[in-house]
Amino acid sequence: MSGNSFGKLFKITTFGESHGVAIGVIIDGCPAGLTIDIDFIQSELDKRKPGQSKITTQRKESDLVQILSGTFEGKSTGTPISLLIPNEDQRSKDYGHNVDVYRPSHADYTYDAKYGIRDHRGGGRSSARETAARVAAGAIAKLLLKEKGIEIFAHVTAVGQINAPNFNSNNLAEALAVREENIVRCADPATANQMIDFIDSVRKDGDTVGGKVGCIIKNCPVGLGEPVFDKLHADLGKAMLSINAVHGFEYGSGFAGSEMRGSEHNDVFLAGDKPKTLTNYSGGIQGGISNGMDITFITAFKPVATIMHNQQTINAAGEAAEIKGKGRHDPCVVPRAVIIVEAMAALVLADHLLRQRSNRL
Amino acid sequence: MSGNSFGKLFKITTFGESHGVAIGVIIDGCPAGLTIDIDFIQSELDKRKPGQSKITTQRKESDLVQILSGTFEGKSTGTPISLLIPNEDQRSKDYGHNVDVYRPSHADYTYDAKYGIRDHRGGGRSSARETAARVAAGAIAKLLLKEKGIEIFAHVTAVGQINAPNFNSNNLAEALAVREENIVRCADPATANQMIDFIDSVRKDGDTVGGKVGCIIKNCPVGLGEPVFDKLHADLGKAMLSINAVHGFEYGSGFAGSEMRGSEHNDVFLAGDKPKTLTNYSGGIQGGISNGMDITFITAFKPVATIMHNQQTINAAGEAAEIKGKGRHDPCVVPRAVIIVEAMAALVLADHLLRQRSNRL
Amino acid sequence: MSGNSFGKLFKITTFGESHGVAIGVIIDGCPAGLTIDIDFIQSELDKRKPGQSKITTQRKESDLVQILSGTFEGKSTGTPISLLIPNEDQRSKDYGHNVDVYRPSHADYTYDAKYGIRDHRGGGRSSARETAARVAAGAIAKLLLKEKGIEIFAHVTAVGQINAPNFNSNNLAEALAVREENIVRCADPATANQMIDFIDSVRKDGDTVGGKVGCIIKNCPVGLGEPVFDKLHADLGKAMLSINAVHGFEYGSGFAGSEMRGSEHNDVFLAGDKPKTLTNYSGGIQGGISNGMDITFITAFKPVATIMHNQQTINAAGEAAEIKGKGRHDPCVVPRAVIIVEAMAALVLADHLLRQRSNRL
Amino acid sequence: MSGNSFGKLFKITTFGESHGVAIGVIIDGCPAGLTIDIDFIQSELDKRKPGQSKITTQRKESDLVQILSGTFEGKSTGTPISLLIPNEDQRSKDYGHNVDVYRPSHADYTYDAKYGIRDHRGGGRSSARETAARVAAGAIAKLLLKEKGIEIFAHVTAVGQINAPNFNSNNLAEALAVREENIVRCADPATANQMIDFIDSVRKDGDTVGGKVGCIIKNCPVGLGEPVFDKLHADLGKAMLSINAVHGFEYGSGFAGSEMRGSEHNDVFLAGDKPKTLTNYSGGIQGGISNGMDITFITAFKPVATIMHNQQTINAAGEAAEIKGKGRHDPCVVPRAVIIVEAMAALVLADHLLRQRSNRL
Repeated sequence: MSGNSFGKLFKITTFGESHGVAIGVIIDGCPAGLTIDIDFIQSELDKRKPGQSKITTQRKESDLVQILSGTFEGKSTGTPISLLIPNEDQRSKDYGHNVDVYRPSHADYTYDAKYGIRDHRGGGRSSARETAARVAAGAIAKLLLKEKGIEIFAHVTAVGQINAPNFNSNNLAEALAVREENIVRCADPATANQMIDFIDSVRKDGDTVGGKVGCIIKNCPVGLGEPVFDKLHADLGKAMLSINAVHGFEYGSGFAGSEMRGSEHNDVFLAGDKPKTLTNYSGGIQGGISNGMDITFITAFKPVATIMHNQQTINAAGEAAEIKGKGRHDPCVVPRAVIIVEAMAALVLADHLLRQRSNRL
Repeated sequence: MSGNSFGKLFKITTFGESHGVAIGVIIDGCPAGLTIDIDFIQSELDKRKPGQSKITTQRKESDLVQILSGTFEGKSTGTPISLLIPNEDQRSKDYGHNVDVYRPSHADYTYDAKYGIRDHRGGGRSSARETAARVAAGAIAKLLLKEKGIEIFAHVTAVGQINAPNFNSNNLAEALAVREENIVRCADPATANQMIDFIDSVRKDGDTVGGKVGCIIKNCPVGLGEPVFDKLHADLGKAMLSINAVHGFEYGSGFAGSEMRGSEHNDVFLAGDKPKTLTNYSGGIQGGISNGMDITFITAFKPVATIMHNQQTINAAGEAAEIKGKGRHDPCVVPRAVIIVEAMAALVLADHLLRQRSNRL
Repeated sequence: MSGNSFGKLFKITTFGESHGVAIGVIIDGCPAGLTIDIDFIQSELDKRKPGQSKITTQRKESDLVQILSGTFEGKSTGTPISLLIPNEDQRSKDYGHNVDVYRPSHADYTYDAKYGIRDHRGGGRSSARETAARVAAGAIAKLLLKEKGIEIFAHVTAVGQINAPNFNSNNLAEALAVREENIVRCADPATANQMIDFIDSVRKDGDTVGGKVGCIIKNCPVGLGEPVFDKLHADLGKAMLSINAVHGFEYGSGFAGSEMRGSEHNDVFLAGDKPKTLTNYSGGIQGGISNGMDITFITAFKPVATIMHNQQTINAAGEAAEIKGKGRHDPCVVPRAVIIVEAMAALVLADHLLRQRSNRL
Repeated sequence: MSGNSFGKLFKITTFGESHGVAIGVIIDGCPAGLTIDIDFIQSELDKRKPGQSKITTQRKESDLVQILSGTFEGKSTGTPISLLIPNEDQRSKDYGHNVDVYRPSHADYTYDAKYGIRDHRGGGRSSARETAARVAAGAIAKLLLKEKGIEIFAHVTAVGQINAPNFNSNNLAEALAVREENIVRCADPATANQMIDFIDSVRKDGDTVGGKVGCIIKNCPVGLGEPVFDKLHADLGKAMLSINAVHGFEYGSGFAGSEMRGSEHNDVFLAGDKPKTLTNYSGGIQGGISNGMDITFITAFKPVATIMHNQQTINAAGEAAEIKGKGRHDPCVVPRAVIIVEAMAALVLADHLLRQRSNRL
């Protein structure tokens, strides 16, 4: 049973390979009556697309999106929305030398072993190019969330060992503006500069580096999340872990919380109109259900596997081989991954918004 | 849409509340012909049950499991296997004082807000008692994995800030024996003693503490995991994050990997009969698919919310209230969580073993 | 991938074999706040249970239902509702002679061939006893529909070649009373008498006979049904075809409609407050979506395969064998099937009621 | 929850409206290594496309299919296969007069009522044009079945009251050749001529007529079908009932079987190498599982709702309105529906072939 769909009620299915004709996505379950702003979808794709700056891959793709179905006179009709992004920059020859060679820490070997056949051009289906389809679908989820007043904001909180200070703005629109002013997409300009310099030096070494993306969700209604397995943070975690290169996920107090005592970790409720808590170690989620506080989580990305160094490896016959570092490479994915994190978070929330509707008479 | 099922082909659905008649699980999709060893299922439940030692909750439940369907003459028949665990120790009166009061960092408020009605006795459905059903189902998954030679081993790697040394045994049977000799279930006896002393002191303070559980899977066949969303680590992550009190998940290099460079993080392939890698920062999974190396991951648990201190909180009317620390409490869940982690990992692998069967002609 | 679940949002999973410990069902997705009237559930089971009259099987089962989870103080809580019906009359010895012999037109051979193992006692999982679990779950679905004013009524419209006149009552409560006054459950008393006499004569011959059950649903809201695959009538059809012994399903004009011309078959809309149609060949469903008119369908049941005659057959080795007609048999299932048809229809409608909630912003 | 997907392991999701940019389908779960013969897919589409003969609609669509993903060097790779069919003949002006008027026995009213918005051009999503996507996906399912030796054959068995004699050929290739020699797609040439004349006369009346399509499946392996809900015939039934204009489904003895006695209806097993039955009233399926005999079923289609007569109806405001009979119409769908029936049957079988793989250790 294949795994190319995500979500239950707001459900997406992506398709497409790195160097095929096109990539795309079907969104099945978008409620009718939503204004589908194609310019917004495109602007989200533009934030993810390669070639944006000196610290991302130089591969050029304009990533222009088309709507094939599911809208009428600018609004969703309740039928499947199909979005298509044709592939343009199919420099397959760059990849010809990898036909039989397994690149270290890539998916070449496992795809071959699993399926017995593999589109070896640029990673095929395992390429992060597939995430463009997620970003397009996530943009529609964001439009739905916006109707409900829900805001999502992600930014780069770490590159290598350079960490941004804790994010504590209540004005996400402002934070977004700040974030978009620097090419690394960190909400703290001073840290951003350090990160950019570091990535640039790593790039010059022909090397890559990992990083972290933090995400905050404001104005999430109370009640989202479906125990006992589809807890809101469990679905967020799966969503993040499904993104290429992600190796870790934590929400609220996260790994640090495992070192704490209950007496310091408990979030005391405060009397008032609407239940709030004094602290938010719960990260806005209790028992797997949103409690109305800010939802916070962090996603950790490993360094990109494609480096410009020669590496020892094996070929499909199991024999020793060398892989040459040439072509183009992406020194650090987190600046672009910010948009993918937001998109996946939006998809999870849109799905749970709809799921929540069936819980009461 | 409710979330009480887990898995697609090896699928479980759990039911039951902490103080209801019984808890249980239906396993739909267990292949026919598997010998169902009820003694093994019971022995797994015995490792999870409360009241095992001075460092776990003193609640007494014998957790005796019954098989209601799906087996014939000791073997699975391919029809749904239903397992029932009657509840015994229903001291509901202990919980009478919490009818209208929201316990901090519990699910009382969110359940009320979500459903408009709540079984307030002992956490109801949100109680970790539900995980007994998972352990019972996981035991059957383990029996299936055993037929395929796959081994799963988890142990406590941290309690608060006390960390076990890296686990590096290749003999999981031996490690299991060592682990079961200490009540905290750490594979390193020296660290175990420190952890036990620490938990005991925390318990005497009426407080609780978090911790971490590490898991290793050996002899997993190459090819498990269904990109692009149901990557093996994404499903493992969701499984772990669905366990009560879990706040973080990482696999392979994890969060530390995000600080590394590609040139150090890449796992170089070694020539030989069967592809292996020199290092295993990938944690046995590449592109979301198992590569035959050991699968490794860590799950972080927050401290239990029930403490023996009085705490300020609110009631259902939003008014200030105080919650008294009385009754029984569990100072640290990780010694029992070890079994739950193994069970959920077994369920994920059993599911992916079956899913893998449809990928080739 | 097993097939023991039905429904997507109001989802049931049944378990249990004819001569096992118990049969039962989990309902996952029942909205919170519904009053769960266990007496009503039991009364529905009483209408399905064997041994009701001279024209049904004499097997005795009291079919007493227990609620194990999912309710609190008489109301659903939004968590899984588990219903258990212990088996009582396990006269397995009656079935001992069939261990290796394949009964004609039963599922003995196909279960053996599919799973390689079979609980041969009384049909095991393939026994119509499993439908008791459906009736119990369907009773809860009916309680939900009642809250929304939706009424479902089924009755026997044919036994062999004896057909009831067209049903044209608008008072379903009255029709139900009439139906329950005769043991064959036909809404027309005169036809009922003919049917009863006929079944009784068939029974005396040690034979069985098929029949038809008609169903009408009143006050169904406009808009239920999810094109293009989960059309309301497609889900009703699957629900009916999943009942033991069903060989045909038609809705609205049905098979007869295939002989008509469009000019006579089209249902002309009538001006008024609320769209209605002059005729109802559409059977209350257009484009797979309910249109507010009565939903009507007919389900055809083959004659029961167990007869009291000796029959030639084969054993598991493929050798000729004879099967003796002895024990108890059910000359005609339709009187009891009426309740199963209603239950499955209720489950489909409850599911689509919830599904409909996510179609608009 | 929307209903645009069909199948569980061999799963399709269709998209597109009658007068949108394109229609298409994603197939997720096609095993890797299958040769994808695009000429065969196109030839299947050519059999469904409009404008083939005088007895079908004159709408012109070339229905040229493109493969966007999921294949490499002519073979499936195990990743989602996306097929696109651009729309050409978008004479929307023909439909301008129906903006606010509900056509009798169409889905105009129900779509409006369900979604609150409707693409009124030519039926939008409710148009039978969507079935082209099914035929394309079904062609790939057929290629998979062919690898396993399974053959599917459908033909028109009735138009109005004209019935073809029982089909009794064992040579499906030959029957296919005969069927394709007449424009009504009946396997009996003499009956075909009568049907054609009748449809032509109906067409000249500006009217339409219903009909039936029979289907036979040969060489289906024993063991397909997943009790208790996903019985093979239940999934076939749902598949057929999801096709536009279908009002009835029966398999094996069908409705006629409900008039029979068990002693005549039972299929006696014959001794031999491989279990066979003397008769086949079971239609190749027992207990919901294929038994190796021919699978047979019949699907009943109502007459097309679009007729060339003026009809009384209502508009969106509920006021009386008249609908003019103009434009193009399709006097009888069954000649083209034959291909859709085969496609849906192929999809069901492909899905169950894969599902069957997880039933044994």
